[in-house]
Amino acid sequence: MMPPKLNIVPFVSVEAMMDLVLTTGTETFLRELAAYVEADFRRWDMFDKVARIASHSRDGVIELMPVSDGRFYAFKYVNGHPKNTRSGRQTVAAFGVLSDVESGYPLLLSEMTILTALRTAATSAIAAKYLAPGGARTMALIGNGAQSEFQALAFKVLLGIDTLRLYDLDPCATQRCRNNLSKFGMTIIACRSAEEAVEGAQIITTATADKRNATILTDNMVGPGVHINAVGGDAPGKTELHHDILLRSSIFVEYPPQTRVEGEIQQLNADHPVTELWRVVTGEKAGRDSDDQITLFDSVGFATEDFSALRYVHDKLRAGGGFDTLDLVADPDEPRDLFGMLLRHAAHKDEALIRLRSSTSGSGTTGG
Amino acid sequence: MMPPKLNIVPFVSVEAMMDLVLTTGTETFLRELAAYVEADFRRWDMFDKVARIASHSRDGVIELMPVSDGRFYAFKYVNGHPKNTRSGRQTVAAFGVLSDVESGYPLLLSEMTILTALRTAATSAIAAKYLAPGGARTMALIGNGAQSEFQALAFKVLLGIDTLRLYDLDPCATQRCRNNLSKFGMTIIACRSAEEAVEGAQIITTATADKRNATILTDNMVGPGVHINAVGGDAPGKTELHHDILLRSSIFVEYPPQTRVEGEIQQLNADHPVTELWRVVTGEKAGRDSDDQITLFDSVGFATEDFSALRYVHDKLRAGGGFDTLDLVADPDEPRDLFGMLLRHAAHKDEALIRLRSSTSGSGTTGG
Repeated sequence: MMPPKLNIVPFVSVEAMMDLVLTTGTETFLRELAAYVEADFRRWDMFDKVARIASHSRDGVIELMPVSDGRFYAFKYVNGHPKNTRSGRQTVAAFGVLSDVESGYPLLLSEMTILTALRTAATSAIAAKYLAPGGARTMALIGNGAQSEFQALAFKVLLGIDTLRLYDLDPCATQRCRNNLSKFGMTIIACRSAEEAVEGAQIITTATADKRNATILTDNMVGPGVHINAVGGDAPGKTELHHDILLRSSIFVEYPPQTRVEGEIQQLNADHPVTELWRVVTGEKAGRDSDDQITLFDSVGFATEDFSALRYVHDKLRAGGGFDTLDLVADPDEPRDLFGMLLRHAAHKDEALIRLRSSTSGSGTTGG
Repeated sequence: MMPPKLNIVPFVSVEAMMDLVLTTGTETFLRELAAYVEADFRRWDMFDKVARIASHSRDGVIELMPVSDGRFYAFKYVNGHPKNTRSGRQTVAAFGVLSDVESGYPLLLSEMTILTALRTAATSAIAAKYLAPGGARTMALIGNGAQSEFQALAFKVLLGIDTLRLYDLDPCATQRCRNNLSKFGMTIIACRSAEEAVEGAQIITTATADKRNATILTDNMVGPGVHINAVGGDAPGKTELHHDILLRSSIFVEYPPQTRVEGEIQQLNADHPVTELWRVVTGEKAGRDSDDQITLFDSVGFATEDFSALRYVHDKLRAGGGFDTLDLVADPDEPRDLFGMLLRHAAHKDEALIRLRSSTSGSGTTGG
C-alpha cells in the first residue's frame, strides 16, 4: 500500500471506513481492534504520554490527543459539543493521523468519528473482561445515543453479554438502538427508567452526552458485585455518577493525570486511590478480587487507544483495504528548494498556456 | 464556498496552495498574509494560547500548535527533521486545520509546508518593520535553504530591502537561492563567508537548519545598530547565535513560555528581560529606540501566525480560490444514529449488489 510519491498521504474517508468495518464485519473489527488496544496497554511504559490538550468554549471543547511509542506517532482531533445534534451535527466528531517518528511524515489521515466509537467500546469491553463479575450475561445500557450499539456489540463479542436492558430519557433513542441491534442475536429489553434498567444487570454502562454534572446513577441503584462502565463523564463539569457510588467502588482509570480532571473522579480528592487499567492488564495489579466488590471503569478515552486504532487501520490498509490519496506534503525535486517548486509550477502553467495558445492559433491558421 | 454537506471539509492540497500563491502573486500573498498576522498580533489577548506540544525523538520533533480566538480554532502539525533532506524529504513539513469553535467542526484542512514558509517570512518582516534601523536596504541572509527566498521577498515587500548578501556552508544552496530570486529585481551578492555576508548589512537574517547549538554569528560580527532576525534556532538544543550577542541585544519574542525553551534565549537565564512583539505592534512597548541599539527578533514561530495564515487562506477560498473536498466527518441522517449509518451503508451496498445481479440476470434472460 506504500504510495509511490513523497507528497501523497493515504486518506481513509468516512465511506472508506464504513467499507472497511463492513468488509471486516463489525464484530470481528471490534475483536481485532480490542487486541491492538490491549497489546498497547501491555507496553504502556513505551509511550510518550500527555493529557489531551483541550480548548474549552461555551458550547463545547476541541481536543488534541497526541502520543508516540518512538516508532509511530499519532494524534486525534476530537470535539465534544452536546448541542450539535440540534443542527444535525455529531456531538463527537474526530479525525486523526498516524506518522512515522523517524521522518515526522504522516503515514495515514483517517476519519475517526466512527473509529472513536469503536475504540471506546473496545476499551470498555477490555476493562470489563478484567473487572466484571464472572459469568455476566446482562448489561444495563443507560444513554442510547451514538455510542450505545458499539458498546453493546463490544460486550457481546468480548464478554458474551447476551441481554441488554436499555434506557434513555428519549424513548425514540431506545427504540432506534433496539432496532439497530435487532439482527445481532441479543435479548433486548426497553426499560422506562434507569432504575428498571439496572434490575438484574451484572454490568451497568452509562453513556449519556449532557455537558453537566448529572446523576444518571444514584447510590441505591448500585448493588454489590456490579461492574460500572462509566463512559459519558469525560470532561470537566461532566459527570454521571453520584459521589457516594465512587466511595463504595474500586476505581480503574486509563491515565490518571487526565482522568482526575475529566472523569467521574473529578468529584473526589486528588489523592483518592485509583488503579491504572494497564497495570491490571499486565497482571501487576488485581482487577476484581471479590464477588461483592463494586468495580468502576471511569472511562474518558486516552490517546493510546486512538494510536492503537490508527495502527490497526494502517495494518488493514497494508493488507488491502481501500483508501484515497491526498497531495498533502510539498515534495520539491530538490528538498531544500521549496521556493523553486513554486517557480517551476508557475513555469509549467505558463508552458501549458503557451502550448494551448499555439495549438489554438495553429488550428486557426491551418486553413490560411 | 460553503460545502453543501456536513461530511465535507474543504482541502487545500500542495498543488492548490501553489495555484493560490501564484494566482495571487507571491509578493502580494506575502503582503496580505502579513496584514492578517499583524492584525492578530494586535488582538493578542483574545487568544487562548499554549506553548506547542512537542514529541521529541532522536532525529527530530513532531509538534502540534493549537490556538483559538473563541470564534475560530486552528492547529498545525509540523515536524522538524534536519536529516530528512538525505531521503528527499522536507526538514519541515506541515499541515493544519481551521475549525468553527461553536460546532467544533473543521472548516478547512490545508497543506502548510509552503504556508509555514510564507508565514514565517511574513512574521520576520513584521518584526523588522518595528525593529530594524530606518532606511535599511541591505540584508545578510545566512542559511540559503528552504526558508531563504521567502525571507528575501517578505523583506523586499514589507521593508524595501533591495540588496541581499547570501552565505551558506553549501555554495550550491547559495547559487540556487540566487537563481530563484533572479527575476525579482534585487541586487544579490554571493559571499564566501558569514563574515563577508554581514559587511554593510543593516539586517542579518540567520535561517540554518542544523539541530544543534551552532554559532552562525559570533560577537565580533554584529556591529551597533544592526537588526538580527534569528529564524533557525527554534528547538531545545538548536541555536544560532553566540551567547555574548544576546547580552548586547534588545530581545523581542513571540510567546515567552515557548521561546524560553526553544529560542536563542534558551542560552540565557529564565528571567532575562525580553519584550513580546505584540506589545511593540500595539505601541504599548517601544521597538528600536536608538541608532546604536542591537535589536534581535528571536523567532521560533507561534500558533497565532498559523491561525492567521489559515484564516487568510479560508478568506481567499471564500473569494473563489480552488480546493478539493474531503469526506471527513461522519454525517448520519439522524445525528445520534452513528451505528444506523453503518447498517444503512451495508443495506445500500446489498441493494446495489442485488440490482446489479438482477440487471445482469435480466439482460441474460431478455432473449429467453
